[in-house]
Amino acid sequence: MRMARPENAHQARLLGLLRDEGPRSRAELGDVVRLARSKLAVELDRLAVLGLVEQAGLAASRGGRRSGIVRLSSRLRFVGVDIGATSVDVAVTSGELEILGHLSEPCDVRSGPAAVLDRAMAMLGALRERGLFTEVHGAGLGVPGPVSFRDGVPVAPPIMPGWDRYPVRDAVAAELGCPALLDNDVNIMALGELHAGPARTVDDFLLVKIGTGIGCGIVVGSRIYRGVSGSAGDIGHIRVDDAGPLCACGNAGCLEAFFGGAALARDALAAARAGRSAFLAGRLAEAGEVTAADVAAAAAAGDPVAVAMVREGGRRLGQILAGLVSFFNPGLVVISGGVAGLGHPLLAEIRSVVYRRSAPLATGNLPIVLSELDGTAGVIGGARMISDQVLSVA
Amino acid sequence: MRMARPENAHQARLLGLLRDEGPRSRAELGDVVRLARSKLAVELDRLAVLGLVEQAGLAASRGGRRSGIVRLSSRLRFVGVDIGATSVDVAVTSGELEILGHLSEPCDVRSGPAAVLDRAMAMLGALRERGLFTEVHGAGLGVPGPVSFRDGVPVAPPIMPGWDRYPVRDAVAAELGCPALLDNDVNIMALGELHAGPARTVDDFLLVKIGTGIGCGIVVGSRIYRGVSGSAGDIGHIRVDDAGPLCACGNAGCLEAFFGGAALARDALAAARAGRSAFLAGRLAEAGEVTAADVAAAAAAGDPVAVAMVREGGRRLGQILAGLVSFFNPGLVVISGGVAGLGHPLLAEIRSVVYRRSAPLATGNLPIVLSELDGTAGVIGGARMISDQVLSVA
Repeated sequence: MRMARPENAHQARLLGLLRDEGPRSRAELGDVVRLARSKLAVELDRLAVLGLVEQAGLAASRGGRRSGIVRLSSRLRFVGVDIGATSVDVAVTSGELEILGHLSEPCDVRSGPAAVLDRAMAMLGALRERGLFTEVHGAGLGVPGPVSFRDGVPVAPPIMPGWDRYPVRDAVAAELGCPALLDNDVNIMALGELHAGPARTVDDFLLVKIGTGIGCGIVVGSRIYRGVSGSAGDIGHIRVDDAGPLCACGNAGCLEAFFGGAALARDALAAARAGRSAFLAGRLAEAGEVTAADVAAAAAAGDPVAVAMVREGGRRLGQILAGLVSFFNPGLVVISGGVAGLGHPLLAEIRSVVYRRSAPLATGNLPIVLSELDGTAGVIGGARMISDQVLSVA
Repeated sequence: MRMARPENAHQARLLGLLRDEGPRSRAELGDVVRLARSKLAVELDRLAVLGLVEQAGLAASRGGRRSGIVRLSSRLRFVGVDIGATSVDVAVTSGELEILGHLSEPCDVRSGPAAVLDRAMAMLGALRERGLFTEVHGAGLGVPGPVSFRDGVPVAPPIMPGWDRYPVRDAVAAELGCPALLDNDVNIMALGELHAGPARTVDDFLLVKIGTGIGCGIVVGSRIYRGVSGSAGDIGHIRVDDAGPLCACGNAGCLEAFFGGAALARDALAAARAGRSAFLAGRLAEAGEVTAADVAAAAAAGDPVAVAMVREGGRRLGQILAGLVSFFNPGLVVISGGVAGLGHPLLAEIRSVVYRRSAPLATGNLPIVLSELDGTAGVIGGARMISDQVLSVA
């Protein structure tokens, strides 16, 4: 459903505060937005008339009359959809972007946009039947490939046959009767971290996703930086070393050819076949294949070949990240994605290289952390992306 | 002298337009800022009262009454000061940032802040004696090292003994009695390109300066991006190859250890001493030393060793730039600085590597060009930096 939009910058600021900080008393809101009491009352009244905010009781007294508590309309619902290579996640959130319901199902993105979007809409229907919402006020979607944000379509995505220029955004907007936005999965994960992760307090940060491939979400001034053609953060094919393995892109020595889910699976298969790792050979015999998850399990079990693979991958990723940290001087780096399940040995190796090789000023106060959002960064970020639009001046 | 500042965003927008586009008729201004005619007249009248704009004749008729032409006050003067490792440039500009006078003198930054700033003020005095100005309304300065932009001081600059935390900005502001700002030299050069170079039409771009060292100015949304601790763009010590020469920073294989003025001079000296280049050996015999400028001269004269050095340096710089282009997806890359005098052979090598190794979406429409500003980027950028402040709402 199309919501009313705020009418001016003050109203938009108030809505953003209520989304990010939760219900607040009128007195507290007045302190933060620095509006005169009478002006604040006018704007809040307008927002109530527009159906965007509502009264939620009285605050404790600060000495005088008790101040009314204001919150975003409790009817507000946003939807986040995170389409991965082999899964779909759908969540419904409140106006404050709290997850009210979340479903995750395996789904092959190669089955094409019609089938995948049908599946996502069916999952949303299941959430609706739980009584979580009647109307949706905006949907934000992510897909695992390059996107024209302006047009709302995937652009020549390598692992998404049939999706090229498919009108994902407009199809979902028409289906749900509400505004929708489409971005790539790494960017919506970065927005999720910005809203609900340790990046909340940082203006400029990097989210590095290590999945089958490797990508980076860039946040500048609390907004996604997309670059002039929308491909910013495409770091998977940065050169690590001329003498590296041949990459699917045709060059040699790309980061993804050294590390990432596909490279780990390739190296694990070689180690299993060569008998260098009993653990991985066992997995190969059982399942007929070995995956990055097997490498994680082997490393966790102390398998020395797997541990060496994780360390070597962390070192290579760290070398690239060190350069990006020198260049970009972020306030935080968040490591995320399936292969981030390799956990602390990976993180230790990345930190070691970045802290040693980046410009000293850039690492003086730079936390490098694993994501704490546990698979929800994408759906929260999708909801955040569309809420940024819906709660801004039209 | 402290100017009046614009009183609201409309006035600031009008001043920015008049600075960047030059004198405009009221009718043209109205078209661009989308203000009602009466509202526009009010704002322009206020700006005239504040002494920020003035009348400059009548425009040709567009059918009805002839529209008055408005320009920035012809008394407005900005100063740009570009302090290099071995030179100082001082320029005085009009409000439109046209250079009215420009002096450049050799000056060793190691002689310390008092001596260097005295020299710069004396140069400005010489420009004043030419009758170019009576009052200065703002000064923007650049120095060849890390800067705390907020504090207006250099921070632990490696090649500037005696400058650490010296209050450069406040000293100049007090001396001239006007607002001042301090940034590093690469950032003010990027602002110069943004104002007067091919970057005028691009929101997001990179300025790579190859001097004694190598640095990068990053422009996001037509503003300098400084990163969380002000060190963004510090690319000189990004790792090119583990098996590279030892760098002054203690690591091996940094970009600056491969390329830049100091590395070229080192390699040229080795070639001259080993008798591999008659040209460079001749220079060494004549002058007792060889410099990056000698390598440029040798390459221009067709000396094969020098040509190979330029190509190899371009290849190494190109490898790093390719990664940054994939990450940042800029709309333009400008190559500048003393070693950029190596010219088109260097540019050809950089282009070849970047176009081959960057993400295809990022290079689909990416010009890589040499700066056309010929040594004035820094002073224009300094004037631009302070004008951005002086012409904005206080």
